[in-house]
Amino acid sequence: VAAVPITFLSDYGYSDEFAGVCRAVIARISPDATVIDLTHGIPRHTIGVGATVLASALPFAPPGVHLAVIDPEVGTARRGIAVRVKTEARVLVGPDNGLLWPAIDRLGGAVMAVDVSLSPFRLEPISATFQGRDVFAPVAAHIARGAGLAEAGDEIDLGSLVRLSPSEPSIGAGRVVAHVVLIDRYGNASLDLDDSHLPRTGLRLGRRLAVEASRSEHEAVFTPTFADVEPGELILFEDSHRHLALAVNRGSAAEVLDLEVGDEVTLRAET
Amino acid sequence: VAAVPITFLSDYGYSDEFAGVCRAVIARISPDATVIDLTHGIPRHTIGVGATVLASALPFAPPGVHLAVIDPEVGTARRGIAVRVKTEARVLVGPDNGLLWPAIDRLGGAVMAVDVSLSPFRLEPISATFQGRDVFAPVAAHIARGAGLAEAGDEIDLGSLVRLSPSEPSIGAGRVVAHVVLIDRYGNASLDLDDSHLPRTGLRLGRRLAVEASRSEHEAVFTPTFADVEPGELILFEDSHRHLALAVNRGSAAEVLDLEVGDEVTLRAET
Amino acid sequence: VAAVPITFLSDYGYSDEFAGVCRAVIARISPDATVIDLTHGIPRHTIGVGATVLASALPFAPPGVHLAVIDPEVGTARRGIAVRVKTEARVLVGPDNGLLWPAIDRLGGAVMAVDVSLSPFRLEPISATFQGRDVFAPVAAHIARGAGLAEAGDEIDLGSLVRLSPSEPSIGAGRVVAHVVLIDRYGNASLDLDDSHLPRTGLRLGRRLAVEASRSEHEAVFTPTFADVEPGELILFEDSHRHLALAVNRGSAAEVLDLEVGDEVTLRAET
Repeated sequence: VAAVPITFLSDYGYSDEFAGVCRAVIARISPDATVIDLTHGIPRHTIGVGATVLASALPFAPPGVHLAVIDPEVGTARRGIAVRVKTEARVLVGPDNGLLWPAIDRLGGAVMAVDVSLSPFRLEPISATFQGRDVFAPVAAHIARGAGLAEAGDEIDLGSLVRLSPSEPSIGAGRVVAHVVLIDRYGNASLDLDDSHLPRTGLRLGRRLAVEASRSEHEAVFTPTFADVEPGELILFEDSHRHLALAVNRGSAAEVLDLEVGDEVTLRAET
Repeated sequence: VAAVPITFLSDYGYSDEFAGVCRAVIARISPDATVIDLTHGIPRHTIGVGATVLASALPFAPPGVHLAVIDPEVGTARRGIAVRVKTEARVLVGPDNGLLWPAIDRLGGAVMAVDVSLSPFRLEPISATFQGRDVFAPVAAHIARGAGLAEAGDEIDLGSLVRLSPSEPSIGAGRVVAHVVLIDRYGNASLDLDDSHLPRTGLRLGRRLAVEASRSEHEAVFTPTFADVEPGELILFEDSHRHLALAVNRGSAAEVLDLEVGDEVTLRAET
Repeated sequence: VAAVPITFLSDYGYSDEFAGVCRAVIARISPDATVIDLTHGIPRHTIGVGATVLASALPFAPPGVHLAVIDPEVGTARRGIAVRVKTEARVLVGPDNGLLWPAIDRLGGAVMAVDVSLSPFRLEPISATFQGRDVFAPVAAHIARGAGLAEAGDEIDLGSLVRLSPSEPSIGAGRVVAHVVLIDRYGNASLDLDDSHLPRTGLRLGRRLAVEASRSEHEAVFTPTFADVEPGELILFEDSHRHLALAVNRGSAAEVLDLEVGDEVTLRAET
């Protein structure tokens, strides 16, 4: 039987061999599994950013195994998990710190979960600080080539999985207070707002709005894409994650508005 | 039938999941296609740099599909295209903004082109800002697994493709005014000069020359490789793109000469 | 016959197409060979860092061909080599500048070596500055698809291979003077110390120690993992390379101690 593909996301970066060694481990166990690197550039230890990116990316991936490692508490009692979800019987593998939760949710919810911390598939001697290599990659590789979840670890209660509580915008009285959840390399800033929030906000496509961030105020227009405005102008738009987001055409909204992930942004529809 | 390989170049960078999601889309449509990432590190929105790198890299690639996305005008009326070239019937896929043109030219010229902006292969709902994921990757993946160009979009006139006018050196009266077309991570600066220009320049292998850049003047020697000179010395050499280029042995010509892509450099053969 | 996998490590970085073009060359020659990128983020021209990472990573990789290119003397008389080692008959390919030596040693030692500088597998015209593309990648690809070492070049004496002399700690009189051999993206600093040195050092797991670096002194504890201490505290631990290493929980030891590769660090067990 051919192996299913494995997607791989982490905060390992590109300057070290961490992601590469995990790929090597996978290739040793499951030579036929295609590994699809989603990104290893998630900022260090930012579980929330990784969780948002993972949930947004996985619906575009083929069914298979989804390996994700952002693991600031490696070496502690935090569990490692493998979780089967409803959508296409995919399996997510990683630390039980909330990283996988939004993706599990997006993919129909968990159907079965096992604790892989002491998986028989782990490499020995296990490192206290690099369980991507020693636990998660081998577990993912064995599942990709057909091992059952029950072989990878002991079943655990689905209700015990660690959940992330995503940030929530506060909406009312003609203004929206939202939070930055992602900033991409172009300086576009995704907010914790999507089109389900729109009716209550007074924001309308084609209309202008005021954006307050880092104690300064800016004018923007709510428009489908960058190129609808002049270079240097600020827009609100629906980004490819289907979040509402701020961008500057040919520039960087994060720089112009001095934004970081987690920052508050206030939007007010202009009349 | 096995799928042909897909090469992939973009300015998506490595900190986000953009390139990874495109690979995921390809794997979902065409699981057997090998994806060869050329680079995703082209500086943001620099179509000229991407075009030069692509044209230089593709002759080394296996025949197949060549996906390239640097797309500052995404979401506007700019077209998406798929173009079959003469050499090995390869197909290039990307925005019609000149990015593909030098590679098309290098690979024997265009034989057939289609507008894929509304391709039946596109993903729905299409994003206004991420057509790499929603248009170009799916089109490339379907063609890699055997779809014909005519299935990917409506045929367009070959004469209507957007062309880049490459920069040209000006040569005469004992001096050459050239332009920087690429700067690599080692700080080597490729110029819009190749050996076809040499006879008119007075520059000769083994001879010294004066290099004027950013209002300062430097001594250099025209030599086959870095290691012919002492660390810290400036050379003119034929680089791996077959451009004449400036380098500093164990150092950075871009730093020493304070160069950016597009800058003018004046070379004068010494007598 | 299916091709064996090829691992690939270099200092080519990610901003240019260098690693990508090598992958393209491999795919053209050996379409079935899986290429496993270990990393291309080794700091420019740091043969020692690359050698350490390579030796540490390869035991996790599947048997096959191991391509590694950090090549500051490209274009000089330095040789290119392909070396078969005892462990699993793997073949290492790269410049003969010491980069491969610690990995050869780790994998049971060399069994046969050939000079590939003028390999019949090289691409023509050969570039003076990019032999990763023109020599090493094609040699690796041909060997991966079954070519014998003797076809790749002329046999050379195993005793003639360039060896790296690794740095050595000096241990005595209640103090250890060690050297930084690697710094990772988390700012963890690996030392030229492993558990074989421990008995002579007086350092004991669970005990405190003094760390002197860059003329300042710091308190640390020798512990299995980061999470054993509070954020911001300095630890000595055994890292995933099985080196003793310095780390700051949720911080950067390299920053706190102002460390670079090659720096001296003095450790003193506290009583």
